Amino acid sequence: MPATLSPSRRVRSTPYTARVEEAGVSGYTVYNHMLLAAQFEGIEADYHHLLRHVQVWDVACQRQAEISGPDAARLVQMLTPRDLGALAPGRCMYVPLTDADGRIANDPVLIAHAPGRLWLSLADSDAIWLCRGVAQAAGLDASIREIGVAPLAIQGPKADELATRVFGPEVARLGFFRHGRFDFGGHPLAVARSGYSRQGGFEVYVDREELALPLWDALFAAGRDLEVRAGCPNLIERIEGGLLSYGNDMTDDDTPLDCGMGQYCHLERDTGCLGRKALADYEASGKARKLRGLLIDCDRDSAPPLTRAWRVLDDRDEPAGKVTSAAWSPRLGRCVSIAMLEPGRAGTELRVELEDGRGVRAEVADLPLVA
Amino acid sequence: MPATLSPSRRVRSTPYTARVEEAGVSGYTVYNHMLLAAQFEGIEADYHHLLRHVQVWDVACQRQAEISGPDAARLVQMLTPRDLGALAPGRCMYVPLTDADGRIANDPVLIAHAPGRLWLSLADSDAIWLCRGVAQAAGLDASIREIGVAPLAIQGPKADELATRVFGPEVARLGFFRHGRFDFGGHPLAVARSGYSRQGGFEVYVDREELALPLWDALFAAGRDLEVRAGCPNLIERIEGGLLSYGNDMTDDDTPLDCGMGQYCHLERDTGCLGRKALADYEASGKARKLRGLLIDCDRDSAPPLTRAWRVLDDRDEPAGKVTSAAWSPRLGRCVSIAMLEPGRAGTELRVELEDGRGVRAEVADLPLVA
Repeated sequence: MPATLSPSRRVRSTPYTARVEEAGVSGYTVYNHMLLAAQFEGIEADYHHLLRHVQVWDVACQRQAEISGPDAARLVQMLTPRDLGALAPGRCMYVPLTDADGRIANDPVLIAHAPGRLWLSLADSDAIWLCRGVAQAAGLDASIREIGVAPLAIQGPKADELATRVFGPEVARLGFFRHGRFDFGGHPLAVARSGYSRQGGFEVYVDREELALPLWDALFAAGRDLEVRAGCPNLIERIEGGLLSYGNDMTDDDTPLDCGMGQYCHLERDTGCLGRKALADYEASGKARKLRGLLIDCDRDSAPPLTRAWRVLDDRDEPAGKVTSAAWSPRLGRCVSIAMLEPGRAGTELRVELEDGRGVRAEVADLPLVA
Repeated sequence: MPATLSPSRRVRSTPYTARVEEAGVSGYTVYNHMLLAAQFEGIEADYHHLLRHVQVWDVACQRQAEISGPDAARLVQMLTPRDLGALAPGRCMYVPLTDADGRIANDPVLIAHAPGRLWLSLADSDAIWLCRGVAQAAGLDASIREIGVAPLAIQGPKADELATRVFGPEVARLGFFRHGRFDFGGHPLAVARSGYSRQGGFEVYVDREELALPLWDALFAAGRDLEVRAGCPNLIERIEGGLLSYGNDMTDDDTPLDCGMGQYCHLERDTGCLGRKALADYEASGKARKLRGLLIDCDRDSAPPLTRAWRVLDDRDEPAGKVTSAAWSPRLGRCVSIAMLEPGRAGTELRVELEDGRGVRAEVADLPLVA
């Protein structure tokens, strides 16, 4: 019998946990010391629903680090190789954070509410301590705290329709990775066109706990005929879509250059990024690895779940990398995966050692695996 | 039906996970992005066994941050209010880490292997990023990495007997919070007299993965007549014993002064600790709260589990603090708990609002609750 997740304050529940439980969550994971649903009816049933309808996701675990003060933007610029020159209120930016060695500490979305008030929507690491350590040791005038914001995502092809019913028609005019304020319960909530799926939708940054359950309930009341359901980031859909997961597909052993984030590494001029030199040296070394898609030859029931990296070998049985996420794809009829490949190995015929040790063939493919 | 914990690479398994599963783990938690068993037969059955016999615990989740280089000790001293003057090879030290604001980032045990090679055995936060941020922004010559060490604990009244059978009689001569090297499989493993229970025992820092399962198996083979079992930190025993848990009893909202760690706050002279001024100011303000024991009047089946802090009210129904951990104590026949109390509220008659909202009486008591 699989073990359950034991209750404690340390593994935090969210303002929506009661509703997630009522909706029949069957699997949890823990993300930023907080509960995150991993499946309801089942990963595959959840997937089919997400591709057709609309889901409401409790993603309160995307904790918001608020960086405020005159040096707020300077601090974030020290921590990311991405040039923040284009940062502006109303725009979301994906900003891989690194330390001075170029190691990825997190890959948050940055939202600027005002020049001196930035939110980092954090992936699963306490990168807030990197922010504090650097700010304090460098003597910056910036205050860093995790704030009581509980993001709720609306994802799926009917997301625009559902969001419109609750927030009004203006919300559908938001461009991708743009955010604005939309009234709910008399309070202007920040809503962004974003989310951890390729099916489209929004993330609502609920910054008043008393609005959390009313918003959840309003979305379900408004979406009954849209077949709205409770959902969560879906393993199959996010691998097919090439959405990376910090802790799975990248860790602090990796740099943004290993992870296909070259477009966010503006190393040509000195923005103040602490990791610039390390990243430039690494780029010049030619040692950067590559995150790629891998289509693995195995049948539906024998491969996933993946609980640890699977070894990838080349045609001479030499180590060629590792598989970092994997799932059975109903759309492709194959096991889809993301793999970190050693330089120069992406073109060869590869073999993957599955969880049970069996070796099977695999084919390199571009991410996303499903457009 | 309670939800299970969904598999992924991000929630890491340990070198011992196969044995933990074979031993019938029934509840997991996640600690430092890694699996940690929370119960086997049941928290109460596990507790009775721990008090009488000996258990082997997979505590690989106590991740080791290795700080090396000429500035290693200087870096740790910047991060702790404890004077590290007494640091010496062979000695373990409990060192609450804080940032410059005095917020607790972690409460690890520090082991010095050599002056320029320190291990921090981390509690549940990525404080490694605070170490890196401060070291890099302050220009220190120190390298910080999480290393492949998987601690295994031997806990319970028969721990000396079991450890002696596997490591030889010298191990029983280790003083409390002292460590040494003991041979296993031809390799000298670091063994400390320490562990997260009050029942006595050792922690073995297994730094070669190929020794992990052989050591587990050797302990079980040697301990059959001692009734050795797989175990884990036990909620009841650790609350009775007043052992604090980062994330439960303290968070980054708290300083060491709130947590009864005054004896580790050497603020009278400048050791280089970044948080010294903030902590001294906080101490002078008289606002420090107090972690205390609370004996809560409720019956066995109605109180725990605690999944979020429970409010504590004083005799005028004013907020007096919060309960941060709670469990039913078979030895005391009451609900034992740890609570963070506002200054001056520890003497009054208190009331606790349980998880279901009911208010019940509670009595302040010293930690540990059971000596």
